[in-house]
Amino acid sequence: MLKEESSPLVRADVAVAEAYASVGNVGIGFDILGHTVEGAGDRAEVRRIDTREVRIAAIHGVVTDLPHDAPGNTAGAALLSMLHGLDLPFGFELTLHKGIALGSGMGGSAASVVAAVVAANALLDEPLPREALYPFALDGEVVASGSRHGDNLGPMLIGGLVLATSSRLVRIPVPPDWHCALVHPHVVLETRRARAALAGHYALSEFVAQSTNLALVLAGCYSGDAALVREGLSDVLVEPRRAPLIPAFARVKQAALDHGAFGASISGAGPSVFGWFEDRASAEAAACAMREAFADAGHESDALVAPIDGPAARIL
Amino acid sequence: MLKEESSPLVRADVAVAEAYASVGNVGIGFDILGHTVEGAGDRAEVRRIDTREVRIAAIHGVVTDLPHDAPGNTAGAALLSMLHGLDLPFGFELTLHKGIALGSGMGGSAASVVAAVVAANALLDEPLPREALYPFALDGEVVASGSRHGDNLGPMLIGGLVLATSSRLVRIPVPPDWHCALVHPHVVLETRRARAALAGHYALSEFVAQSTNLALVLAGCYSGDAALVREGLSDVLVEPRRAPLIPAFARVKQAALDHGAFGASISGAGPSVFGWFEDRASAEAAACAMREAFADAGHESDALVAPIDGPAARIL
Repeated sequence: MLKEESSPLVRADVAVAEAYASVGNVGIGFDILGHTVEGAGDRAEVRRIDTREVRIAAIHGVVTDLPHDAPGNTAGAALLSMLHGLDLPFGFELTLHKGIALGSGMGGSAASVVAAVVAANALLDEPLPREALYPFALDGEVVASGSRHGDNLGPMLIGGLVLATSSRLVRIPVPPDWHCALVHPHVVLETRRARAALAGHYALSEFVAQSTNLALVLAGCYSGDAALVREGLSDVLVEPRRAPLIPAFARVKQAALDHGAFGASISGAGPSVFGWFEDRASAEAAACAMREAFADAGHESDALVAPIDGPAARIL
Repeated sequence: MLKEESSPLVRADVAVAEAYASVGNVGIGFDILGHTVEGAGDRAEVRRIDTREVRIAAIHGVVTDLPHDAPGNTAGAALLSMLHGLDLPFGFELTLHKGIALGSGMGGSAASVVAAVVAANALLDEPLPREALYPFALDGEVVASGSRHGDNLGPMLIGGLVLATSSRLVRIPVPPDWHCALVHPHVVLETRRARAALAGHYALSEFVAQSTNLALVLAGCYSGDAALVREGLSDVLVEPRRAPLIPAFARVKQAALDHGAFGASISGAGPSVFGWFEDRASAEAAACAMREAFADAGHESDALVAPIDGPAARIL
């Protein structure tokens, strides 16, 4: 059905976009660094309607018990922000096809947001550059997480590994061979609970250690020097506080490291765990071992293996 | 005299090296980021002696009341570390010529250390790469500051803007036109006092803001994108805590910003203030205005203007 709607014969008032899963935080870039992982995604089918409103027609897929009122739905809120921000003379009707589980740490809410705004953008008389959609996307993300961070939205919008500030997206170059293994155990960890684990104060020494690691990873990506990433990809700030919330985390991480990971840590707020690898074969072998480690602890899981320099959301 | 000693006719058991001043921290890279600033420096004249010891023969220049016992002197301690670490069968006699004031925030202690180890290295039967001198230099720096950080040592050893971890130096590329203005008011601020201002706890939100800025500056340097550096070069973590220790800081910083600075902040532990600029002319104009701001508050000062991608220590 979607294919037919996106064919050249379709009416110009419907667009379908897909946004891929993402690894937020990437261990050392809490709230500011993320990259997409092709293989799972949310799709949004957006129809241009004559009334100035946002309607949610239906939600299908792996999650369906989401708010159907537009302001309470992350994707709906983003479209409302777009409608009001651009003072559009028309509205949108949204149908979501969820491919990413919520509470998985794979950017499920962000993917719905980005798919929706990218599809809606295609329906504008003059579509905007992807970066211009970022403020609207942030207005949607805040509904889901209570925090205005773009580490999932940014890479979904423009692709690749992205530094996402409150107002800007910067794509960080990554060698094309470098791959990510992202393993999702079938347990739910609410983002808000994972954020609560971070309450309290921090020592300056923690900051120095973590920012050293962030700088090493950025330098390694820009220069294509795997040794720098291997030294830096270690979360000493957030991971120690969140790891207890994730079953078998230490064993899953160790499985990644045993298979040559540059580093491994929690994807987004968890419970998914990611590792970075020098090539696809290493990432695939590690993904199996990481799934086994979850299985040993009684948890089923699924895995994605894809280049770190992943794709932006696509119009289908 | 130094020129004669470094001529080809001189005995091979004497070497003279100069290490330049540096901007430590660079605002957003506390303890880990720094760059050299040509125009002021410390020189070390090192003589290879038959006994396995380090002797300090004399200390000349702008500071002379430094410890003359080797273990208590930063440069002496570094040479001792080198002597023991490399298990050398000989020793060193050191004469220091201080060109950088202590307590200035311009890396004065680090410059003595680096000049000494670079000169001593030239006297080894097989001189080591600069990076291999870093652990010995850290052993010296800890005597001065009580902290094992390499944000001044690193750039002095290998040149340019350097990310200095506890074990590694990474040179960050910087466009050659970008210049630094470094203004040193004639007041002394002890590093240990400046460190005390940083005691206490920090909020995660401070960390996120500061690491965002660090990432923007690194991305801007790697990509040569001044807009990223302009957005990121703002210290929201350390500067607010240390600024009250520096007379007229806000006015001096504003003078830099009024003259087009990407950003301006405290050099090292202060009281010197630096700004980064897109070209030399802007940096020179800003340096005058920054000096005037100090003068208005009753403080004489001197200024250096030099490329951010400054030189490593040199054998003279």
